[in-house]
Amino acid sequence: MQTILILGAGKSSVYLIDYLLETAVAKNRNIIVADVSEEIASQKLKNHQSGKAIKINLDEAENRKAIIGESDLVISMLPAFLHPIIAKDCLELGKHFFSASYESEEMRQMKNGIEAKNLLFLNECGLDPGLDHMSAMKIINDEKKAGNRIFSFKSYTGGLLAPESENNPWKYKFTWNPRNVVLAGQGTSRFIQNGELKYIPYHMLYKRLENISFDEVGDFEGYPNRDSLSYRKIYGLDDISTLLRGTLRRTGFCESWDVFVQLGITDDSFKMELPSWFSHRMFFNSFLPYHETKNLEEKLQDLLPWINDEILGKIEWLGMFSNEPLPKTDGSPAAILEEILKEKWKLDFQDRDMIVMQHLLGIETPKGMKEVVSSLVCKGENQEYTAMAKTVGLPLAIAVDLFLDGKIIVRGLHVPVLPEIYEPILEALEKTGIEFEEKIRAV
Amino acid sequence: MQTILILGAGKSSVYLIDYLLETAVAKNRNIIVADVSEEIASQKLKNHQSGKAIKINLDEAENRKAIIGESDLVISMLPAFLHPIIAKDCLELGKHFFSASYESEEMRQMKNGIEAKNLLFLNECGLDPGLDHMSAMKIINDEKKAGNRIFSFKSYTGGLLAPESENNPWKYKFTWNPRNVVLAGQGTSRFIQNGELKYIPYHMLYKRLENISFDEVGDFEGYPNRDSLSYRKIYGLDDISTLLRGTLRRTGFCESWDVFVQLGITDDSFKMELPSWFSHRMFFNSFLPYHETKNLEEKLQDLLPWINDEILGKIEWLGMFSNEPLPKTDGSPAAILEEILKEKWKLDFQDRDMIVMQHLLGIETPKGMKEVVSSLVCKGENQEYTAMAKTVGLPLAIAVDLFLDGKIIVRGLHVPVLPEIYEPILEALEKTGIEFEEKIRAV
Repeated sequence: MQTILILGAGKSSVYLIDYLLETAVAKNRNIIVADVSEEIASQKLKNHQSGKAIKINLDEAENRKAIIGESDLVISMLPAFLHPIIAKDCLELGKHFFSASYESEEMRQMKNGIEAKNLLFLNECGLDPGLDHMSAMKIINDEKKAGNRIFSFKSYTGGLLAPESENNPWKYKFTWNPRNVVLAGQGTSRFIQNGELKYIPYHMLYKRLENISFDEVGDFEGYPNRDSLSYRKIYGLDDISTLLRGTLRRTGFCESWDVFVQLGITDDSFKMELPSWFSHRMFFNSFLPYHETKNLEEKLQDLLPWINDEILGKIEWLGMFSNEPLPKTDGSPAAILEEILKEKWKLDFQDRDMIVMQHLLGIETPKGMKEVVSSLVCKGENQEYTAMAKTVGLPLAIAVDLFLDGKIIVRGLHVPVLPEIYEPILEALEKTGIEFEEKIRAV
Repeated sequence: MQTILILGAGKSSVYLIDYLLETAVAKNRNIIVADVSEEIASQKLKNHQSGKAIKINLDEAENRKAIIGESDLVISMLPAFLHPIIAKDCLELGKHFFSASYESEEMRQMKNGIEAKNLLFLNECGLDPGLDHMSAMKIINDEKKAGNRIFSFKSYTGGLLAPESENNPWKYKFTWNPRNVVLAGQGTSRFIQNGELKYIPYHMLYKRLENISFDEVGDFEGYPNRDSLSYRKIYGLDDISTLLRGTLRRTGFCESWDVFVQLGITDDSFKMELPSWFSHRMFFNSFLPYHETKNLEEKLQDLLPWINDEILGKIEWLGMFSNEPLPKTDGSPAAILEEILKEKWKLDFQDRDMIVMQHLLGIETPKGMKEVVSSLVCKGENQEYTAMAKTVGLPLAIAVDLFLDGKIIVRGLHVPVLPEIYEPILEALEKTGIEFEEKIRAV
């Protein structure tokens, strides 16, 4: 009998739980789902005979450790900042640990301990990070093995709407954490292009776009995301001339979103403390210069002359120019904007989300140059069974299943860049419909 | 016998020390100057019979407290982050404390203790903060006393070059901490204008300027600085329609500096770790988009089309387009830029600095509206006796002198916004040549 403990039964855990339950009886496994809400944990288990829902309060260390102690393996679906706590418990109690979050510095400090106890701690095994690493490393390692040289690697991912649900002027709704969407791109994006190191500050990011096209679902725009330079080492591409990882939005989104960026409305660095009667229009106006006679629309046009009617229409559609009071008046500009957008970019019942991912590689072969374009399109079933939950949860579920089956035997602290980890996971993912379509073109 | 302890004998302490030494014999005072370098402390005292130079290591608490314990009063000229440590010692040992730095939250937590021991802790008693508060509060309180209503208050300060030393294309050299100049304006500037709250993000700041003119030294441009809104409470102007505090630069500086801001070269949020052979030109190019055929100058023009030949000339004058290796390759973009600028914006031996400050008030009187413009221009003598050292050091020296003479009797935690503090200080400052010129105009 094997016991899997899943911590956190949020939206992205449905596929993960379903996948593991499906073979639980045959494989003689118990699935314990622990959440702050026992009800939510219970719903996800759908009265399955191998499942057990429990309430957990993470602050109670003794209770937490008792729950972890009864399991063989822990999957953490908790917010990333909680992972070091859980990982420390797992190390102490000798339990394997799996997550879809970035490997943190705190996690790295446990490396020796993890190895000494012969455990596997596998992080970054969801969508992004996760599926991006696995699918990229498969191409990279296969090409290297064939004696080819990769001189350019670009990879873009987006968590967006299925085309049939793009029924507002922005062609966008929140399909995952709204706060992350509002703050997306903050900091300085770093990458290398044709041998030149490149740095883009946040306020320039939404102007420096690349067109990325999918046969099935059309055109998107991609912008570089955070520190791509560190992936030279992670992906074993130390001498590569071009390496860029980025985020996708539907074409036309970025130039309109850039209005908020330029005005400072996505700023999360200070609290506004506005009067409770402050309107949307006053809020928007507070980021524009004062003028004795010009109205808000005229001042906006003066300040950002590149704004056209389409962009203006999108801003207006969000209610930014209205005299209605704000839904929230304390908090950062970003937090107030998020509250406004949450209402406008809410998913309708029948809406479906979509994950798009594309790798573009430039490769030198003995026969000449070639370009490889590898694309993934994954659409959600409905608001519960989303593409996001699927692409985050299934890689993790499959990794755990393969591990318990003895098909992943590596131990230590890892992200899924080793063939022995990603090969069987990608193979199993294909059977669930998560499959990349590859196009090769001689250049 | 009274003993004054001055902690820190850096550049800005010369006027402070000289002023206190001048009357030390007559007033029966000892001046102890403690610095990490006994030599530097000693130089500043010029063998004066009432002065004593000592070496201090602030990490050695016992020694530090012994030195503080022997004094009646401590003036801290140390970096601001050290003030809580010194202030805590002073509170424990029952010593008065004076500084030219902002009153910190940690300082505020000592308020009750300071009062209980009947001590005076006076912060923000230098130039900015300091002289700005005092000169502003004198006008504000005098107008209020006369039954007038202040509806607008704007105040700008700049630490710049005397016009005769403006002999480079930027008309600027570092006359104080270069790092603070490179990072100036970061964060979000907040103020109120004609009843409208206004927020300006950093990347918009150097475009939203006001012309500020001085009869004696010409035109400058001012931009809003940090959180002016908090001064409504500090200055007792809660219902004011316009309140803005800002920074002055010589006209033409900001649009050129904005090139660095727009490109992200003033970014201090990450380390670059560039190859050691990286040139100025490569550094600058790393903030521009890649292009197959266009050169750096063409790409810059494409990205920032408002750049004219004059601006381009200024950037070029700094060596930004040269193939010379960088003076520093590790550190943030801001740190690397600072290192480049330090060489180019170095003061020559004969250069003189200059402090400019201007308050502009809109006032409603029973006889109608009037405008008050109060201006200070203070030029340095030479590279040692700078305007910066004078305007930071003399307010502090005078405050201490008046306090020890029993002419400031208030106790507790204060900044100089009370008439009983600022009135005698401003009066004494006038005798040293630090004097505001006031113009009143009916509107």
